[in-house]
Amino acid sequence: MRDFLPAEKAHRERLLAIIRDGYRAHGFDEIETPVAEDSARLHAGLGGDNEKLAFGIQKRGLTHDDLQAAAEPLDLVDLGLRFDLTVPLARFYASHRAELPAVFRSIQVAPVWRAERPQKGRYRQFVQCDIDIIGEPSVRAEAELLVASLDTVDRLGLEGAFVRVNDRRLLIGMLETLGFPASEHEQALVTIDKLDKVGQDGVVEELRERGLTSAAVEALDAFFGRPQTMEHLTFGERAIRRALPEGADDAVIAELAELGEAVARARGADPADALLQFDPFLVRGMGYYTGPIFELAHPSVPYSLGGGGRYDGMIGRFLGTDVPATGFSLGFERLVDLLERSGAAGERAIALLHDADVPLADLVALKAALVASGARVRLLVRPRNVKPALDALAADGFTHFAFVAAGAATPEALDLRPLA
Amino acid sequence: MRDFLPAEKAHRERLLAIIRDGYRAHGFDEIETPVAEDSARLHAGLGGDNEKLAFGIQKRGLTHDDLQAAAEPLDLVDLGLRFDLTVPLARFYASHRAELPAVFRSIQVAPVWRAERPQKGRYRQFVQCDIDIIGEPSVRAEAELLVASLDTVDRLGLEGAFVRVNDRRLLIGMLETLGFPASEHEQALVTIDKLDKVGQDGVVEELRERGLTSAAVEALDAFFGRPQTMEHLTFGERAIRRALPEGADDAVIAELAELGEAVARARGADPADALLQFDPFLVRGMGYYTGPIFELAHPSVPYSLGGGGRYDGMIGRFLGTDVPATGFSLGFERLVDLLERSGAAGERAIALLHDADVPLADLVALKAALVASGARVRLLVRPRNVKPALDALAADGFTHFAFVAAGAATPEALDLRPLA
Repeated sequence: MRDFLPAEKAHRERLLAIIRDGYRAHGFDEIETPVAEDSARLHAGLGGDNEKLAFGIQKRGLTHDDLQAAAEPLDLVDLGLRFDLTVPLARFYASHRAELPAVFRSIQVAPVWRAERPQKGRYRQFVQCDIDIIGEPSVRAEAELLVASLDTVDRLGLEGAFVRVNDRRLLIGMLETLGFPASEHEQALVTIDKLDKVGQDGVVEELRERGLTSAAVEALDAFFGRPQTMEHLTFGERAIRRALPEGADDAVIAELAELGEAVARARGADPADALLQFDPFLVRGMGYYTGPIFELAHPSVPYSLGGGGRYDGMIGRFLGTDVPATGFSLGFERLVDLLERSGAAGERAIALLHDADVPLADLVALKAALVASGARVRLLVRPRNVKPALDALAADGFTHFAFVAAGAATPEALDLRPLA
Repeated sequence: MRDFLPAEKAHRERLLAIIRDGYRAHGFDEIETPVAEDSARLHAGLGGDNEKLAFGIQKRGLTHDDLQAAAEPLDLVDLGLRFDLTVPLARFYASHRAELPAVFRSIQVAPVWRAERPQKGRYRQFVQCDIDIIGEPSVRAEAELLVASLDTVDRLGLEGAFVRVNDRRLLIGMLETLGFPASEHEQALVTIDKLDKVGQDGVVEELRERGLTSAAVEALDAFFGRPQTMEHLTFGERAIRRALPEGADDAVIAELAELGEAVARARGADPADALLQFDPFLVRGMGYYTGPIFELAHPSVPYSLGGGGRYDGMIGRFLGTDVPATGFSLGFERLVDLLERSGAAGERAIALLHDADVPLADLVALKAALVASGARVRLLVRPRNVKPALDALAADGFTHFAFVAAGAATPEALDLRPLA
């Protein structure tokens, strides 16, 4: 877990404000849930491997006898820190459905916690930015998610981002066509998910080692061999069909093509642009996806900057009745690292280097007058050596400075100078 | 712990943005620390009674043997959720001192957790807004804290707030003058702190019951009897001296008077205004205060809306070397309840009630065009009964709506109507 110093914190808050404003403009409403959920809910099987990484909060008022009687550590825990924002959203929606619009578009911008082993680039506390649309079964929801996300990424100043798209139904259809029995689908998907890392040969080798139906593995190997399948193909009904084995579901393909056209139109992009790209081997880790899935990518980095998909079955697990849902999560921590720090545009920030004998009331009144004029103002006693102090102020985003002596602490007497 | 629905979350975020901007303008820099601190640090005796309310996070990878071997529940805990923002600030400052300005003005706006028994108006997770100035020994720090806080409260739209001020050194001096031995000071302060609740007679009675030096208790009773002591006196050297027993420390009184004059000047208030009020019986709970202490008050509510004070000894406990510090905490949750909800000023929010057969690409492109024009836009399928939908939209802050039919989904064809 990390401390954030002023410059980094300002950078993060600036990006968060842009993300909130962007999604809000697209009709999403921010909500907040407590950081802790009931432990039983966190360990209900909806969080995949992340469940094992939940920090547990010890029950209050335990006695020595309670410790002796506990069969396992979880017996002494009743709450846990959330490891994602999806489980809390499902719980929130189940609790408050009656107070929410029929189609509910949520924003959640909040920290989550995972008890990872400490390693470079992995944090135990990090911020997730999720948007979700609950209650809309059609691809209209995906179109809104993607347009809003691409617009928000634009507002952040990241040009050239694109989205890789696939559909869980097409993935399953592909596995069936190639000859994998249903019992092998999960294992096959886990392996195919590693395609970016281990390549085609690596995938085929792992599937052979796992002992999956060998005719199906050979069929996949042959399918990989078709040159066009590994290209990231432009979105469009014909392109999608070309990238899949024979017999793929036409209705699903038509839906994705409609999504591609809508997003391209809304973004003012030519459908031939590579804004959305169909990737028949995109898997996304979580088992709960049921329809279109996506991953935000950028040419400058090899990893994804966000992703999501449709998860129609999940809310039902909390509510007892099925509710369609789809979501997208921006990889906030990666965006923070990728995007350059920049000060608040147009901010006037003034440092007043005052002598120690300036009367307090004069000094504080001068500061207040400058603040009232719209500036950000910092006081500091004039140091013997001014140069390093001015450098530090410039690094902190200050744009102007002035020396203030006793008897001359008024806005009129101020000799404001620009900081390099 | 609570969920926040969209209207409440928007209200909270609006107030938080005003608070951040206000303090930032006054030269404070926001920082962030992780929600969890080492358990040993949370239980080091700096948090007063709140330490007992810390949620403990269970160690990872515990075995059944670990449970059996544990002498007490805390043995199974290595981290805890912070119960305030002062302990994390002290730890942060000790870790990062070299990277911070010599006088460091921090803002922290973040949740804290206390395992309170559930009761009305008490939350187990709530937001604190703290500003602190570390490294400035003079009353200049207090002047900056109070001017920044009063200005921020103004920006929130709360008129008529004022600050009650006292000084721990004057309190101790008063107890000494009245004849309480040093060993009884802590007990005496705990009792005097209840003055607002139990009144003068209640305080005297409790001091008698506790068996404190009876001559001192009688002296306090007589001192209470002086009519002017219970008035909230206008700040100023003479007024302060009048409100205290003979022999109070002139240097401290002069410092407070200087503070009062400076704040009044900076705020454009007449010193005779009641912006700052000296209250000789203001105690503030925490034992770590060493100098001026304050409490933000408002005529409309009987409770305080924030408070703070100087705590010169505390950072030294972490750093090993003494560093002066003073802080102020806004009672954010109380302000949230007190201040009226209002939408973002000047926001244009448009609801598009569309027929189900509008082509997706047309619909999404129309929405994107309106968003690009600066509006907030929500899509919804036109319901059979329009009236309740429009009422709900108005309640959600939408300012305009339009019906969208197939073939007419363009900005030009839009018939925008105001929502009541």
